[in-house]
Amino acid sequence: MDLAAYLSERTARINAALERLVPPETQPPAVIHKAMRYSLFAGGKRVRPILAIAAAEAVGGPCPGIDQAACTLELIHTYSLIHDDLPALDNDDLRRGRPTNHKVFGDAMAILAGDALLTLAFQVLAECRAISGDSRIRLIEELSIAAGTVGGMIAGQVFDIEGEKQAPNAQILDSIHRAKTGALLSASVRMGAIYAGATTEVLEALSRYGAHIGLAFQIVDDILDSTQTAEQLGKTPGKDAAQNKITFPAVYGLENSRAMAKHELAAAGAALDGMGDSADPLRAIAHMIVHREA
Amino acid sequence: MDLAAYLSERTARINAALERLVPPETQPPAVIHKAMRYSLFAGGKRVRPILAIAAAEAVGGPCPGIDQAACTLELIHTYSLIHDDLPALDNDDLRRGRPTNHKVFGDAMAILAGDALLTLAFQVLAECRAISGDSRIRLIEELSIAAGTVGGMIAGQVFDIEGEKQAPNAQILDSIHRAKTGALLSASVRMGAIYAGATTEVLEALSRYGAHIGLAFQIVDDILDSTQTAEQLGKTPGKDAAQNKITFPAVYGLENSRAMAKHELAAAGAALDGMGDSADPLRAIAHMIVHREA
Repeated sequence: MDLAAYLSERTARINAALERLVPPETQPPAVIHKAMRYSLFAGGKRVRPILAIAAAEAVGGPCPGIDQAACTLELIHTYSLIHDDLPALDNDDLRRGRPTNHKVFGDAMAILAGDALLTLAFQVLAECRAISGDSRIRLIEELSIAAGTVGGMIAGQVFDIEGEKQAPNAQILDSIHRAKTGALLSASVRMGAIYAGATTEVLEALSRYGAHIGLAFQIVDDILDSTQTAEQLGKTPGKDAAQNKITFPAVYGLENSRAMAKHELAAAGAALDGMGDSADPLRAIAHMIVHREA
Repeated sequence: MDLAAYLSERTARINAALERLVPPETQPPAVIHKAMRYSLFAGGKRVRPILAIAAAEAVGGPCPGIDQAACTLELIHTYSLIHDDLPALDNDDLRRGRPTNHKVFGDAMAILAGDALLTLAFQVLAECRAISGDSRIRLIEELSIAAGTVGGMIAGQVFDIEGEKQAPNAQILDSIHRAKTGALLSASVRMGAIYAGATTEVLEALSRYGAHIGLAFQIVDDILDSTQTAEQLGKTPGKDAAQNKITFPAVYGLENSRAMAKHELAAAGAALDGMGDSADPLRAIAHMIVHREA
């Protein structure tokens, strides 16, 4: 399949949905909408929404309105980046090759812009009128748990902050990444499958796929942070080591980490074994996640 | 009616629901759940959840499960206080007579605790299994809009921050408070009414009541900030003037502000004219809001 064409078409759809669903910069108070849009339209690869769409396609059949549900994953992801970059957290000045949100709008507005994107995600899901109220409720539950403090993204953030004070070890590493990156990537795949009305069996297979690519994504993220330049990454590299973060290269070494990423890629593929050609985009995305260079 | 007994019984119910719905302090990562609970169980008066319950009672009939829906208003209110108190925003050290969240847990954990309470509010609403999925969706939409950037709480925060740089004037004051405090208080009343299945007509009357008490609440808040001591308020007084905030006393003077609060109280009462004794708690709460001393 032509993955580049696939991604480019879905990215355009997601961008159009975000453009429609996020209040315009002219809506008062203008500054908060400018701040939200600054980070939202900073050239993100839309990995999570595209995973949701691809999972829905794998289940089969057309899914009208799915772009709206899928783009809530980007709202949550973007809020987490804005808050994560704050001086009180990772204190990052550069993201996707541009100054971070708080460097442009100040800390107060960056905090509120993150809050606003998080809040908007749930409003947008509640207003997915193409599907039933019960389906919307399932999606809201998935997303809120994946973003939350019990095994979700915020739990991962906290494990990450606590990890800075500890010696690297495999158990902490696992709990950080299962939560910090894995939960939302996994939820992306699951939300797409739920949207498309997947059976329990298919939902389980796709959940396994999601867990494996979530882990693969984070291993590769850690490898790139320790090997790439700022120009390649669009963000400050080497931050993990500087902040004493517990990473895969720190715990397992670079070569073992690369082998682990490939192992997760194979396991993600195996999870899709019972599915036909409709899962090809998911297979290609898994491959891309492991072999990306930024 | 015996308002004190009424409030005390509802407060106990809300506290029990929050206790049940917020992860325990032993749940890893423990520190985030400690931080969430520190601010959540700091002796708040539970005005918003109680308004929701009282509105549902005014509509009539028993409302099983409403405590769970009502306490999401307290989750949102508490998140907004934690973020509002941060050094980057109002930089407050004292809240409800105790050190603010970031003074105890640090800025990073306070930001994440706020994020977590906001996220949890939507999970808890999605899991209100006593009502239909469609009803839950309506509540989620109400809450997300009231907390959001288009006329909601975050809009109010931004207007407030921008107001610090401007001369006090009635129009900015109105846009700040309609959004900052009014939207969530209004949503409290509306969510209770929706939960109880109010007709459009009753929902409209209760919405008018909510708008008037929202305004009254903020006028009184501004008056108290400029006249009470820290001991009486449980938070630092005189902050509004020190931060050049646009307040009712600053725009209209103290005596006019007091008259305005009484006018809003009368208007709130008039909105309930078509309703019987079941609205007595709402009438008593409006009176309490205007005549409180902290």
